[in-house]
Amino acid sequence: MMIIMKTNATPQQVEHVIEHIKAAGLAVHLSQGVEATILGAIGETHNLPTEQFEVLDGVEDVKRITQPFKLASRQFHPENSIFPLDGFSVGGDEVAVIAGPCAVESRSQIIETAHAVKEAGANALRGGVFKPRTSPYAFQGLGEEGLEYLAEAREQTGLPIVAEIMSQTQLEMMVKYVDVLQVGARNMQNFNLLRAIGETRTTVLLKRGLSATIEELLMSAEYILSGGNRQVMLCERGIRTYETTTRNTTDINAIPVLKNLTHLPVILDPSHSTGHADYVAAIARAAIAAGADGLIVEVHPDPSHAASDGKQSLKPEKFAEMVKQVGQIAQIMGRRLAVVQGAYTPQGWA
Amino acid sequence: MMIIMKTNATPQQVEHVIEHIKAAGLAVHLSQGVEATILGAIGETHNLPTEQFEVLDGVEDVKRITQPFKLASRQFHPENSIFPLDGFSVGGDEVAVIAGPCAVESRSQIIETAHAVKEAGANALRGGVFKPRTSPYAFQGLGEEGLEYLAEAREQTGLPIVAEIMSQTQLEMMVKYVDVLQVGARNMQNFNLLRAIGETRTTVLLKRGLSATIEELLMSAEYILSGGNRQVMLCERGIRTYETTTRNTTDINAIPVLKNLTHLPVILDPSHSTGHADYVAAIARAAIAAGADGLIVEVHPDPSHAASDGKQSLKPEKFAEMVKQVGQIAQIMGRRLAVVQGAYTPQGWA
Amino acid sequence: MMIIMKTNATPQQVEHVIEHIKAAGLAVHLSQGVEATILGAIGETHNLPTEQFEVLDGVEDVKRITQPFKLASRQFHPENSIFPLDGFSVGGDEVAVIAGPCAVESRSQIIETAHAVKEAGANALRGGVFKPRTSPYAFQGLGEEGLEYLAEAREQTGLPIVAEIMSQTQLEMMVKYVDVLQVGARNMQNFNLLRAIGETRTTVLLKRGLSATIEELLMSAEYILSGGNRQVMLCERGIRTYETTTRNTTDINAIPVLKNLTHLPVILDPSHSTGHADYVAAIARAAIAAGADGLIVEVHPDPSHAASDGKQSLKPEKFAEMVKQVGQIAQIMGRRLAVVQGAYTPQGWA
Amino acid sequence: MMIIMKTNATPQQVEHVIEHIKAAGLAVHLSQGVEATILGAIGETHNLPTEQFEVLDGVEDVKRITQPFKLASRQFHPENSIFPLDGFSVGGDEVAVIAGPCAVESRSQIIETAHAVKEAGANALRGGVFKPRTSPYAFQGLGEEGLEYLAEAREQTGLPIVAEIMSQTQLEMMVKYVDVLQVGARNMQNFNLLRAIGETRTTVLLKRGLSATIEELLMSAEYILSGGNRQVMLCERGIRTYETTTRNTTDINAIPVLKNLTHLPVILDPSHSTGHADYVAAIARAAIAAGADGLIVEVHPDPSHAASDGKQSLKPEKFAEMVKQVGQIAQIMGRRLAVVQGAYTPQGWA
Repeated sequence: MMIIMKTNATPQQVEHVIEHIKAAGLAVHLSQGVEATILGAIGETHNLPTEQFEVLDGVEDVKRITQPFKLASRQFHPENSIFPLDGFSVGGDEVAVIAGPCAVESRSQIIETAHAVKEAGANALRGGVFKPRTSPYAFQGLGEEGLEYLAEAREQTGLPIVAEIMSQTQLEMMVKYVDVLQVGARNMQNFNLLRAIGETRTTVLLKRGLSATIEELLMSAEYILSGGNRQVMLCERGIRTYETTTRNTTDINAIPVLKNLTHLPVILDPSHSTGHADYVAAIARAAIAAGADGLIVEVHPDPSHAASDGKQSLKPEKFAEMVKQVGQIAQIMGRRLAVVQGAYTPQGWA
Repeated sequence: MMIIMKTNATPQQVEHVIEHIKAAGLAVHLSQGVEATILGAIGETHNLPTEQFEVLDGVEDVKRITQPFKLASRQFHPENSIFPLDGFSVGGDEVAVIAGPCAVESRSQIIETAHAVKEAGANALRGGVFKPRTSPYAFQGLGEEGLEYLAEAREQTGLPIVAEIMSQTQLEMMVKYVDVLQVGARNMQNFNLLRAIGETRTTVLLKRGLSATIEELLMSAEYILSGGNRQVMLCERGIRTYETTTRNTTDINAIPVLKNLTHLPVILDPSHSTGHADYVAAIARAAIAAGADGLIVEVHPDPSHAASDGKQSLKPEKFAEMVKQVGQIAQIMGRRLAVVQGAYTPQGWA
Repeated sequence: MMIIMKTNATPQQVEHVIEHIKAAGLAVHLSQGVEATILGAIGETHNLPTEQFEVLDGVEDVKRITQPFKLASRQFHPENSIFPLDGFSVGGDEVAVIAGPCAVESRSQIIETAHAVKEAGANALRGGVFKPRTSPYAFQGLGEEGLEYLAEAREQTGLPIVAEIMSQTQLEMMVKYVDVLQVGARNMQNFNLLRAIGETRTTVLLKRGLSATIEELLMSAEYILSGGNRQVMLCERGIRTYETTTRNTTDINAIPVLKNLTHLPVILDPSHSTGHADYVAAIARAAIAAGADGLIVEVHPDPSHAASDGKQSLKPEKFAEMVKQVGQIAQIMGRRLAVVQGAYTPQGWA
Repeated sequence: MMIIMKTNATPQQVEHVIEHIKAAGLAVHLSQGVEATILGAIGETHNLPTEQFEVLDGVEDVKRITQPFKLASRQFHPENSIFPLDGFSVGGDEVAVIAGPCAVESRSQIIETAHAVKEAGANALRGGVFKPRTSPYAFQGLGEEGLEYLAEAREQTGLPIVAEIMSQTQLEMMVKYVDVLQVGARNMQNFNLLRAIGETRTTVLLKRGLSATIEELLMSAEYILSGGNRQVMLCERGIRTYETTTRNTTDINAIPVLKNLTHLPVILDPSHSTGHADYVAAIARAAIAAGADGLIVEVHPDPSHAASDGKQSLKPEKFAEMVKQVGQIAQIMGRRLAVVQGAYTPQGWA
């Protein structure tokens, strides 16, 4: 950490800052330049807020040299984190394709969709049972009933299931059912929830907040990792910008940046990052071409009757096309689509 | 709600949309233009997602005419909402000035600050006991112990107390202590929390999310109001933009816009919206000049030793200057600073 | 165009708006709903500002139904615009790869780079001779001398040349030398320049502004097209957001959105859209996978001695790798890299 | 300037960077920490791009200590720049209020408006004669004819005149007429234009670009100042964000930040920064309360017939109210509205 003193800082002020650095258990390196006096604070600084020094008299600026996250950092864990997800692995050569409706709406809807997305090449099933809705008047999800339907869909298809958790109070129930706990964009900095999830050993899919920086996403992952839960996937799902032709702006740069900064798997959600079914396949292909480890895609058998997010949901046949294209791109990238070995039998479902 | 059909929409598609409108209990108005066929859906549409129509075949776009919020809307409640806050009123002629440290750090710190801010002209006391910190390694707050110190400070000074709630699990405890439940920017769309708070009758200070639109802020207020809790203050605290000289960008426009759209009181937090103590007074003055109903300001007796947010905290003497200036601006606006009638006696405290 | 009247608009106000619509040569369609009275203005509205009605008394809002651009619109020109560029075509099956240094620095530098990028698979050469620099103290380009070097490089390699124009005063000179006039992000709304370029018949590469919407980019293209110059390529080069790990945020969504809205060719500049050489190849692959018609990439034989943009410039060998990967993605997309039939002979250059 | 080496940088790489620093005429300060090796480059670095070092092998990051602008910096010029504007001064105790229509539409319109705004308390007159319009089909301004009308309005009222320049080719003509050359947001980084204006001695009003940082605004001012023209006013006019209830987001923070960083006068344009006449007065008051040196406001005698920007234009009577309120705020700030001593006689005009 470097503390840059104001041009007119007094020797007393410099001395005072030096004492503060030492009090934090750090060594000091003094550099007296023509432009400015700079103090280097040397030691374990990743968990030290820069603010602690910014407030001292005579300080112009404080610049961090090392990253403020550690467990999530590739510097401290150079190899990719690869972890199993019911029959396949995430973060290695296999590309994950998680698909399903925005919300579980009924038993038949999720069972039907599960079979359809598996047939089309998906290797995991998504479906919300608690829905974060902007309006209090909108459909809010089926709750535990929905989890039971998801579990049944898994039994029939072998697809691991992914569902969003919105509150600590849902945690005990959810870990009984799901393979992957999804933390939504609006909860990326719900630190109480992150801590609670860090205590479990259920795999997590952590979505980037609507206006979260990449560093903040990694800091939120750090919350979970520091609880001992090391199976965290990160998910780019579009950020909020001034552009209005799409629901969000896909930050495709985040894929190579995250792969550079962290060892955790990185996936992309082209449904939320575009908001339009017409653009999902193009962005799904782009994600894999940019180096993403997987995708999470909204698929609905009848988007025009979906309880939510119908506009951005693919019909199964469009999704099947997308998977085929994505598989070709994956091959060029030296990877392959993961395949689950499930109980699926085409005759077996209603 | 207007549904605009694609230029090449078929009569069957138009008919299909008309059926959907009727199924939603709405009347239809058909307008056949040269440019496009437009269907008006007439009736109670504020709680109907536009999406329901956007996904239908042949639909180009859906435009909402009425606002998607109702209880928060000035259209349905033209008079300002004015509600009492321990001896003064918010939302009327009196200007609220809530002040105190980012976090309650110790008994002596909060008691000392409470007296100092009251002396300087504050009429309510803030202090966090659960802190949302980006880093899991940072100070996380004193919890219930902090609430007890806050209560003692209120007893000594008569200042009502404001503290942030981060999780539903804290609600039962917090309503026993605080006068105002603060919902932080990161929880503005923690809908489970909003619903739970809506069930209480404790006054709420709802902060705008880092990248929330004004409409989304009002929708979040609607969650609380629809639970029956009608005492909600809205707080502009800066939004995230590309500009880096300040921590956030104060959206000063939000003040007159909110006063126009809603009857709820609107306050501004110049500490978070700038991130620098040097800029707080200027933005506090601007807020009142723009028509805000109050301010919430971070004040710390010794910012250089604050556990958090020291950089943006005012020393009590700087805060006193700010209050004086703000009082003059309030007068020009036909208002006055609220004054609490508390138990404060200068001799009474350690 | 739809004009939505305020709930409390008087019949006189409605009448007054109707007169305004008729005065603009448009037909009126009146729709009296419970929520609101809506007036449809029917006819040629694409060149009519909505503002003209927004200012009238009693008007709540004005919503445009048809796009405000026409010549650039796919609605009026459903087929892709394909135009020749010295031996190959842009906008069809062939993928353009324009490469070269940020700035022409010397004769030997541009000649050497031209040969190197051609060998690596580029089919056009870029190089700035007038440089838009944030600082007045930075290198500003070689001017006409640079154009002469570019022309010599073209003669030796057969690569068409692309250079940025910064001012109308440079136009006469530049059209004598270049095959493609590049309009930079900072000049996307330099309307005088756009008009002047519209009078020429030189192919244009129009870059999106740092914070321009997709609609504004198309409106700027419309300026050029309306002058009679129909050979305009659009270029996504990253937009400004709050994210700081990259120089800009690549708006990859813009690729499928633009391909949907317009018939003009769309290319991507991964050098500016990321700002880091390490991320260029990933984003170049993503662009082609998303459906882009080409790329413009900064390549420098010795980035550490580049006069500008060295950080985001690829060395020729890294660029060659990128081109190979991009070629494979292009094949999956049913396309191929364009190849120029130039005068290049490996022995011929110093 | 500090160059931070990568953790695994080799001694050869460190040596190579040291040579580069020396080659730039700077002294080197080596600081070998546990975390990282840091090299201080000491000397005249404000006109040195950081990039020059960022591209070297082994370099992790480069951080600038001193500001990249100099002539605009308060560090080098601690006193406020105050300069005369036809009978009053800008940048000192007097508050400038520049008002007038978006565009000069006719002789009678500008003459009438000039008298009206003077009567209401304005001390300068604005009016565009070349209009930057997003659409090529919109009204583009009267050109020199408009300048003649402006000059006549000045003669009658004594108000100095302000008009926007869009291209170098207009410079010779414009300096003959105007008192202040306005550089619009879209031209803030039209560096050729800035250089040309720097050669003149006409006062400049430089508007911040739609997504320009405060530092970039100051760098653009530096272009003009470095040409020898020292009379530059800066203008905040709203920045582009995701919020859509207003045309732009007024960055009110920019006022105290700019007053801190630079000695140049700072004014605010509440018409463009809000886009709605209803919000202009609130934001005008806020600007002066935050410490702005003046305002530029759109006023039109008949907004509903304005050729452009009618929606955000005040009627003269609303403007008069605004001036009154602003005058009261100015007084609290220890300032006063400037008054021109013009030839104005209420009987004198048609």
